[in-house]
Amino acid sequence: MSHVKNIQDSLKPIVALCKRRGFIYPGSEIYGGFANTYSFGPYGAELKKNIKDLWWKTFVQERRDMVGLDGPILLHPKAWQASGHLEGFNDALIDCKVCKGRFRCDHLIEEALKEDADGLTVQQMTEKVQKNKVKCPKCGAQDFTEARHFNLMFHTHMSKTGADGDVAYLRPETAQAIFLDYKNIVDTMRVKIPFGAAQIGKAFRNEITPGNFVFRVIEFEQMEIEYFIRESAWEETFERWLRSMHDWCKLIGLNPARVHEKEHPKEQLSHYSKRTVDLVYDFPFGRSELYGLAYRTDFDLKRHAEFSGTNLEYTDPETREKFVPHVIEPTFGVERTILALLCDAYDEEQLENGETRTVLHFSPRIAPVKVAVFPLMKKEPLADKATQIFTQLKAFWACEYDESGAIGKRYRRQDELGTPYCITVDFDTLENDTVTLRDRDSMKQERVPVKELLLILSEKLK
Amino acid sequence: MSHVKNIQDSLKPIVALCKRRGFIYPGSEIYGGFANTYSFGPYGAELKKNIKDLWWKTFVQERRDMVGLDGPILLHPKAWQASGHLEGFNDALIDCKVCKGRFRCDHLIEEALKEDADGLTVQQMTEKVQKNKVKCPKCGAQDFTEARHFNLMFHTHMSKTGADGDVAYLRPETAQAIFLDYKNIVDTMRVKIPFGAAQIGKAFRNEITPGNFVFRVIEFEQMEIEYFIRESAWEETFERWLRSMHDWCKLIGLNPARVHEKEHPKEQLSHYSKRTVDLVYDFPFGRSELYGLAYRTDFDLKRHAEFSGTNLEYTDPETREKFVPHVIEPTFGVERTILALLCDAYDEEQLENGETRTVLHFSPRIAPVKVAVFPLMKKEPLADKATQIFTQLKAFWACEYDESGAIGKRYRRQDELGTPYCITVDFDTLENDTVTLRDRDSMKQERVPVKELLLILSEKLK
Repeated sequence: MSHVKNIQDSLKPIVALCKRRGFIYPGSEIYGGFANTYSFGPYGAELKKNIKDLWWKTFVQERRDMVGLDGPILLHPKAWQASGHLEGFNDALIDCKVCKGRFRCDHLIEEALKEDADGLTVQQMTEKVQKNKVKCPKCGAQDFTEARHFNLMFHTHMSKTGADGDVAYLRPETAQAIFLDYKNIVDTMRVKIPFGAAQIGKAFRNEITPGNFVFRVIEFEQMEIEYFIRESAWEETFERWLRSMHDWCKLIGLNPARVHEKEHPKEQLSHYSKRTVDLVYDFPFGRSELYGLAYRTDFDLKRHAEFSGTNLEYTDPETREKFVPHVIEPTFGVERTILALLCDAYDEEQLENGETRTVLHFSPRIAPVKVAVFPLMKKEPLADKATQIFTQLKAFWACEYDESGAIGKRYRRQDELGTPYCITVDFDTLENDTVTLRDRDSMKQERVPVKELLLILSEKLK
Repeated sequence: MSHVKNIQDSLKPIVALCKRRGFIYPGSEIYGGFANTYSFGPYGAELKKNIKDLWWKTFVQERRDMVGLDGPILLHPKAWQASGHLEGFNDALIDCKVCKGRFRCDHLIEEALKEDADGLTVQQMTEKVQKNKVKCPKCGAQDFTEARHFNLMFHTHMSKTGADGDVAYLRPETAQAIFLDYKNIVDTMRVKIPFGAAQIGKAFRNEITPGNFVFRVIEFEQMEIEYFIRESAWEETFERWLRSMHDWCKLIGLNPARVHEKEHPKEQLSHYSKRTVDLVYDFPFGRSELYGLAYRTDFDLKRHAEFSGTNLEYTDPETREKFVPHVIEPTFGVERTILALLCDAYDEEQLENGETRTVLHFSPRIAPVKVAVFPLMKKEPLADKATQIFTQLKAFWACEYDESGAIGKRYRRQDELGTPYCITVDFDTLENDTVTLRDRDSMKQERVPVKELLLILSEKLK
């Protein structure tokens, strides 16, 4: 897991824009915030929806080898035994006895001693902290508890039965919901290997060091695929998915120069994986994980077969050969996609008149608003005509109508939202039925006939 | 809360179809199921997405008085104090001391004594059970604990701080996430009263008597609107939203004859409400709540203002008058929408040849697959041409390609999915570039030119 500091200085202008323009608000803000949760405001909700819709279209609807799925957050607790999460999905935490501050022990060691704590046991970590008299980053005391494992899964209790020990977990990844339905999909969907199942949904991790805005949060959305294959096909399939993930980054408009691959060294692979490559992105706070691609082997299906007593073998329809499929897993975090897109698109540009404009150069595909319509003035024939145009366009795209303030100010507002096109209705419009169409990136304006607007915009927003 | 028996006989054919055709699988099925959770299979996931997308388009994108929002599931615990959920969102439960079965005490009384237990205290319920020697429905014993209140909110613990008492709750309704962001929306979105904020998202209720398939589940999705108004406008706004909710039912294709209004009697209103009307639907198991419309007054905003110490007054931009807005709340359950649509659309029809066809008469707007393309035979020129047509169409709609089995059998398969149109490529296609277009409901086939397919389908699927 890449180690990201809890410092957000480099992100501050973006965080401020997100708050100011209704993209992302701090969660439960009127109560002083809550555990680094965030709320997607009106434009953030649209941006998020556009990303999820485009992902679904790209990886489910337009492909013949993929099916979609929407499984529960609360799965049978045994599933987490089988997956290894109950036993192994831990952070080593340590508490300051004086100020009661709680810390991830590996981060504490790495920051105090500039040493890599990866692979140390909790005993070894405790010793390191004691021997080196590591100070509490909060209060400066040198009095820590022993390091202990804390499971990253949130747990809750079911009231359904009388037994109080009836624990359930909030899924820490969407993947397992797909594995649990693997058999149902094979039995009912007439799929043939190779095929994949895709899911978008929430997952929860009880992190004590969330941070860097929405980069690491306790509640997040994953877009995840489990792609079922024969073992012999794994290397080739892995490479193909790696290319598809790069293609996706391009599709949403991320600058390819900022997207890199990071191979996980063999000794740091998760218990289920034989190869993992992260797509990392050059965030303002450093190069950090954006997406992940893992070869999970047949680990999950074999474990679920064992723990559930269900046969999860696949039967080849031609050869009748039986085998447990292997799995390639591309994972895309929704919040990290949004953060990368914001960082990529954000710019403060010096204009010729000396002013600075803040602009989000979003790809039209994912921009929350596609077109804004302005009447030059808040006056009858102009406002009327602009409303007509707005009404016509908003049946096709997310549009906005704005009639207040100077036109220049209205352009700036839309620039901050990343709206690719603005249309202004002026007095010439009443004469010759043309409007100005203004391009966000070039800031150029062209005069176009109203009756061609739909066609022109369809072309530009394709 | 309407009382629905845990019997699913009348739903069995629908439940079976849902499983068999990849709409809805039992959750965690390989582990024997889990607490009446369900997983939406490939077609169910598409159906659900279509419903949510259409709702968002109808109530957010196409309206100028609405904004969208996507808030967290984990809110600050104080929010649930303010909302009244911590204190008042309870079921009275009672345990059988012999078999450890746990029951909702009101249901136990209603079923054993045929009496309405609404409004009884836990003491009164306990007395009723003891005096009338009510038997345990599971084991027949007459030995119950006292009835106790159990909160319906799932709780969990945060590991962020050292304090173990650091409780958080899974939201039992999406509404509160909107109230917490009310101020941010007003401050950043240039909205004017009246306006609404809409959200789609998961909510969780720790019910011990879930049942009737996806009608009552512990994990579900809500599509919810908080519409902010002046107090004086409440009656008129309430009526308008009631009409909008009926319009929505028509839009998704529900039979209006099965949708009714049920006014909550004054004495049964929730603590926050001055008027509530349910839209109830004639489910196979009885008339039960589909959607709800509540006038929540200014209860929630006032309480959040009080508990958070934040001023939540709205300032009229013209008169500078300050007031706390009142709220009309239309709520739409996603799972109940799906269940009503399935019940409404499901039919077993006697055909002239004596066979029975099972068909889902879904509105094309929400059908998971819009068009299926078949080559008459799995042979080169036919399959090639069919694939071309399929590829062209699937850029626009969710399409399916099927080349296996007799054409009649392929039609039946699509009927069971509710696919409105099927296209067959046959030898005439190779001669004159026409295909048969088959209508699901009338089962009529017409011959249409391939080059007009896009236009014809666009019209039919509008």
